[in-house]
Amino acid sequence: MRYEEFTIEGRNAVIEAFRSGRTIDRLFVLDGCQDGPVRTIIREAKKQDTLIQFVAKERLDQMSETGKHQGVIAYAAAYEYAQIEDMFALAQKRGEDPFLILLDGIEDPHNLGAIIRTANLAGAHGVIIPKRRAVGLTATVAKASAGALNYTPVAKVTNLAKTIEELKERGIWFVCADMGGETMYRLNLTGPIGLVIGSEGDGVGHLIKEKCDFAASIPMRGDIDSLNASVAAGVMAFEIVRQRMASGERMAKFDKG
Amino acid sequence: MRYEEFTIEGRNAVIEAFRSGRTIDRLFVLDGCQDGPVRTIIREAKKQDTLIQFVAKERLDQMSETGKHQGVIAYAAAYEYAQIEDMFALAQKRGEDPFLILLDGIEDPHNLGAIIRTANLAGAHGVIIPKRRAVGLTATVAKASAGALNYTPVAKVTNLAKTIEELKERGIWFVCADMGGETMYRLNLTGPIGLVIGSEGDGVGHLIKEKCDFAASIPMRGDIDSLNASVAAGVMAFEIVRQRMASGERMAKFDKG
Repeated sequence: MRYEEFTIEGRNAVIEAFRSGRTIDRLFVLDGCQDGPVRTIIREAKKQDTLIQFVAKERLDQMSETGKHQGVIAYAAAYEYAQIEDMFALAQKRGEDPFLILLDGIEDPHNLGAIIRTANLAGAHGVIIPKRRAVGLTATVAKASAGALNYTPVAKVTNLAKTIEELKERGIWFVCADMGGETMYRLNLTGPIGLVIGSEGDGVGHLIKEKCDFAASIPMRGDIDSLNASVAAGVMAFEIVRQRMASGERMAKFDKG
Repeated sequence: MRYEEFTIEGRNAVIEAFRSGRTIDRLFVLDGCQDGPVRTIIREAKKQDTLIQFVAKERLDQMSETGKHQGVIAYAAAYEYAQIEDMFALAQKRGEDPFLILLDGIEDPHNLGAIIRTANLAGAHGVIIPKRRAVGLTATVAKASAGALNYTPVAKVTNLAKTIEELKERGIWFVCADMGGETMYRLNLTGPIGLVIGSEGDGVGHLIKEKCDFAASIPMRGDIDSLNASVAAGVMAFEIVRQRMASGERMAKFDKG
């Protein structure tokens, strides 16, 4: 387990942190700020006996790492990377085939946060990121994840290609997002799956691509090269969801209908 | 087409900008300032339906780049806005049913840029945004669109609900993204369509929702509330693409296979 210092900023992120049961050491609130969301945060903080300090805007601006604190900043002791075992445990607990998302070099914290958020809502059991050439779990990532970081395990590995090999031995199939791949609607994406998304600039690296069982493409037309990485991850993750729903496979009930 | 974001300061410069027909996204006027030139500027702004904000001197001083604002600062659009007619012309040129994306109050420029990028690659013929409570075509939006702003028409309208009504008369069906809606896979999303995406915080507004023909939801599980707005737009836009491909309807060949 690895721990990092952690500042949580922004209303949704702070509310989610409290509701998920995280221990918040200290809460800073903009002095005089009294609207609904802030009152909710203060109520949650009191419930958990968190130390609350009302401070001036200048102080919050100074403390803020993202520049988008929205009048609330919480200090949590640490953020925790998960183990891949945690993801298998989560899948087993839910009685589902494992669904993992692997990111090959996402450097933009907004994209990483949005992908963790997507992973949570698409029912994926975890996100795996590499140690090198990739952003970690920063405050910006936590905010962009809109609280999903509190629920969805994120593991950091030294060698993504080696991790893929190990997971293949445990029965996971790997599909990478690649513009040269087969149109995703034509592939069977059901069963235990690892979805590999590449970096904004370069896509999935050559070595990683070779390890994957197949390559899938989003059917694109238009005048520019590629989707935003978090949008591409979302479109592919929900194609997996659609196929899982259609096949009625081992997956907890997804649909409200 | 220009990439820079323009701040126009000073009375003559602002009057000239209006008279030259430039699109001014927003006008800031010193609160209480009522002399002749300022009244002229306000009259021009109203004529063009520009959003006017009356602000304190400190705010203007802070916004000013030259220190010589003379009580008026205008934000000019970095890009030219298109007309809705341009979108119909593009659909006709391609021999396709119109596919429009309407945004009800997206405030994050990264999200707006990513959605314009998605619109381009999903083969949509244009993006429609409202004048109020929404970000315009700033330099950040242009950058996040990865060049799509050069190809995909973006129009700005005063009243989104009224625009929807007018477009319905021209045969467009409207579907809004709404968590309470029918699962999107169960709806028929082929034919001339307008996809309405709500703001990050509040979703699609009540009035807009009522104007739509149906509401569609992305099947979500998980522990948090909602997807990032640009991810949700991407997932829904590509569900429309999937259905268009499956139905083989009037649409240029999409697929490489």
